[in-house]
Amino acid sequence: MRFYEDITVGDRREFGEFRITKDEIIEFARKYDPQPFHLDEEAAEGSMFGGLVASGWQTAAICMRLTVENITDVATLGGLGVDNLRWHTPLRPGDTVHLRTEVLDKRPSESRDDRGYVTRQVEGVTDDGTRVISYEGIEIVRRDIGADSETRPNSV
Amino acid sequence: MRFYEDITVGDRREFGEFRITKDEIIEFARKYDPQPFHLDEEAAEGSMFGGLVASGWQTAAICMRLTVENITDVATLGGLGVDNLRWHTPLRPGDTVHLRTEVLDKRPSESRDDRGYVTRQVEGVTDDGTRVISYEGIEIVRRDIGADSETRPNSV
Repeated sequence: MRFYEDITVGDRREFGEFRITKDEIIEFARKYDPQPFHLDEEAAEGSMFGGLVASGWQTAAICMRLTVENITDVATLGGLGVDNLRWHTPLRPGDTVHLRTEVLDKRPSESRDDRGYVTRQVEGVTDDGTRVISYEGIEIVRRDIGADSETRPNSV
Repeated sequence: MRFYEDITVGDRREFGEFRITKDEIIEFARKYDPQPFHLDEEAAEGSMFGGLVASGWQTAAICMRLTVENITDVATLGGLGVDNLRWHTPLRPGDTVHLRTEVLDKRPSESRDDRGYVTRQVEGVTDDGTRVISYEGIEIVRRDIGADSETRPNSV
């Protein structure tokens, strides 16, 4: 398991695939984003998108799924938030999403010795490299208290 | 229908309610965020959260649902992105989310005469006023071309 101390700024990864179906788009939209261009093919044809497209929040959720499945070696405690989320191109039925990630920044918590914050740039792209979404996710990551206390004996 | 020109910076609204169940938390997590503290009550008790909590992306999706259901009078063309999203307190089974929104900013598109961007602060709070999520959503809103062309005759 990689702790906060083991995370390297600049570390890049590319991984994962999630193919979205028409039924999944409509199912998500019914529950969380019931706008015509996410719900109904005919109505979507007359919209700005010219056809059925996934809710942007579903596209973000798919990126989360790919992250959880593929970044399995980090001692994450949960998410703090997200900056600069942008939807570049809508996701359509049959599209497959892949992720490109890069560690942008890390900083220790000022109030808690046992954790730090890691900012990861995430880009979701389709098979032909079209960028559908990008954001900077801030994760809370456990510090390696054992190793840390060796180098900072006064902190215990 | 309210167009870009009809949106007032500073406009505040409070509305909506969405009560989340344990089953909904687990169903969303299985599909989009399969981490133990979103999936399994027993595993969640041993986590930082001390019990089952909703995926932060589900909390965001619930805010979208409440927005779509309650802000029905704006000529929106879709979402551009989100800034400063923060998860303040995790959402737990039985919690009910309400929204507080405020229009922070609006600006016309530089490349397209027919649209502008509206930034709306969104806060999701539970019954007792605990803030679970906040973000600034940027929406693309249709301009009232008819009225606009009267005041800018050279633009057509």
